[in-house]
Amino acid sequence: MTRIESQSGSSWLTRDELDSARERLPILYVDIVPVRADESGIVTSVGLLLRITGHGQISRALVSGRVLYHERVRSAVLRHIEKDLGPLALPRLPTSPQPFTVAEYFPTPGVTAFHDPRQHAVSLAFVVPVDGDCAPQPDALELTWFTPIELLDPTLFSEMSGGQGTLLRQALAYCGL
Amino acid sequence: MTRIESQSGSSWLTRDELDSARERLPILYVDIVPVRADESGIVTSVGLLLRITGHGQISRALVSGRVLYHERVRSAVLRHIEKDLGPLALPRLPTSPQPFTVAEYFPTPGVTAFHDPRQHAVSLAFVVPVDGDCAPQPDALELTWFTPIELLDPTLFSEMSGGQGTLLRQALAYCGL
Amino acid sequence: MTRIESQSGSSWLTRDELDSARERLPILYVDIVPVRADESGIVTSVGLLLRITGHGQISRALVSGRVLYHERVRSAVLRHIEKDLGPLALPRLPTSPQPFTVAEYFPTPGVTAFHDPRQHAVSLAFVVPVDGDCAPQPDALELTWFTPIELLDPTLFSEMSGGQGTLLRQALAYCGL
Amino acid sequence: MTRIESQSGSSWLTRDELDSARERLPILYVDIVPVRADESGIVTSVGLLLRITGHGQISRALVSGRVLYHERVRSAVLRHIEKDLGPLALPRLPTSPQPFTVAEYFPTPGVTAFHDPRQHAVSLAFVVPVDGDCAPQPDALELTWFTPIELLDPTLFSEMSGGQGTLLRQALAYCGL
Repeated sequence: MTRIESQSGSSWLTRDELDSARERLPILYVDIVPVRADESGIVTSVGLLLRITGHGQISRALVSGRVLYHERVRSAVLRHIEKDLGPLALPRLPTSPQPFTVAEYFPTPGVTAFHDPRQHAVSLAFVVPVDGDCAPQPDALELTWFTPIELLDPTLFSEMSGGQGTLLRQALAYCGL
Repeated sequence: MTRIESQSGSSWLTRDELDSARERLPILYVDIVPVRADESGIVTSVGLLLRITGHGQISRALVSGRVLYHERVRSAVLRHIEKDLGPLALPRLPTSPQPFTVAEYFPTPGVTAFHDPRQHAVSLAFVVPVDGDCAPQPDALELTWFTPIELLDPTLFSEMSGGQGTLLRQALAYCGL
Repeated sequence: MTRIESQSGSSWLTRDELDSARERLPILYVDIVPVRADESGIVTSVGLLLRITGHGQISRALVSGRVLYHERVRSAVLRHIEKDLGPLALPRLPTSPQPFTVAEYFPTPGVTAFHDPRQHAVSLAFVVPVDGDCAPQPDALELTWFTPIELLDPTLFSEMSGGQGTLLRQALAYCGL
Repeated sequence: MTRIESQSGSSWLTRDELDSARERLPILYVDIVPVRADESGIVTSVGLLLRITGHGQISRALVSGRVLYHERVRSAVLRHIEKDLGPLALPRLPTSPQPFTVAEYFPTPGVTAFHDPRQHAVSLAFVVPVDGDCAPQPDALELTWFTPIELLDPTLFSEMSGGQGTLLRQALAYCGL
């Protein structure tokens, strides 16, 4: 039996239990768009991970993950940034808990722009400037920084799965780009 | 065995299963601040429910409830407004999925300003103008509309439980009041 | 001497005085994206005006205009909707004064995505659902409603001037589209 | 003739011209709430300036000032922080141009919660974390950092003029406090 993702509290969720919950409840997620910004707050580049999906396809991805039981949303944001960008990323979390949008990933494609075949996930999305050294962790092939102009390339969006290309566009719009 | 809250999909959650999930996962909620607004969008009054809590205390409350599996957040907002204010409330849902804040109710008091002894609930909070006839439903004693000036009364906030007084203040601040 | 745009207070601005101010101060504007939304708040169509610009070109435009001295931003939003969509539009103004973005139109092209050769205008942008009958007023040729899918057509954005195509995209992103 | 506030462009505004504009047009401002935040983005303290007003009264104040002709809003925010907190403040400007609220200061008291006897000012309000050394500049007596708990003291709000106490409360609400 594989136990996954340690909980802040004493309770653990087995893989079976999580699979069961995923068929019954919306699961709370965070999506993070890591950016470099200049001193006036203008976004100069956006970091995207390169990953191999479960189906062997290569995909660009945002930093993303579950909020655990008894974990604050802020702590989940910090934890997933550290997990995906390493411990030296120096993220600058927003002072407000207000996400720039909420992405609803449905197991059924087409209900919204977002799709997750494993579950119904509802994700609070944040843009987070990072000042430090970022490095892809073992579960990613690469971390690449794209300028706002490079992000206009439509092939880039098509390399993102589950609707994360839409979420990235929404993040850029929110930043005035 | 009591089955509760019909799901949009085919799966149901027994009371036991929901109780079990509540000990393992953050549960997604919506909190709605129902308001009357004039033609220029200025809030003229806020509706609060009067309820008897499980402990026999009388409490003022916002419209609030769970998001179900395979249910859109917007649909959950509509459903809970209809459940608490009746089918003729004519709510005007926001066009943006961005909540004005996210309230994190912890089972442990003091982690945040919000507390729910039953569970770790993460709630997306929206201000929703209602144009129609609102009536308290059987599970509430009363629905009362308060002007922004009446809401300055600190006893009113103390009559709200779980930190909803804080959430109401945040809603008023968001509306520029 | 032509006097323009009646002021709420007693003071008037001559065309010369306004021209002078436009060379010295940022001028406060509002931009409004008029939308039709369904009962759950989902945007079903966006209204764009068809106008002949000063240079004889045909251009798609948002509802837009100046905030006057001693006029509330909300009142300016209402006034410009009535001016451009007629008195029966029944707009639903947001309850929060927070715009979804701020568009900075510079007289110099390229400083931002927005450009206004006449002036430095700073515009508070709002999405406003309208429920009533909308009709183009004498200064516009046409008012056309586009579905979100029709808005994907890039030629539509190229028909908008001054960067309003960018602003429209930002509005759609804000609405989760 | 005193010329004030150098413009980014070639044009200058004499005191008389600015006084004249102030009687005819809304003037664009920014209000900044400077905060210290911890690594998870939680606000730990808020900085308030202590100033002597024109009438010889002592007043607590936010960082605040005009946006100049041909100046970006972001640049105005940076400039006023440097002017009021010194050049070593290391402000972290938001990546989004969306203010948390818009404060409308009317010359007539009571129109909104905000009042400025000199002019009709419309102010874009931002919360800005500062990481560096902040020092009051010659036009202020003191810069004091208050914890969120200390800010609950109602006497503090009464020491703020023009409605800035209301704006501060709105900022705290926006930060989830």
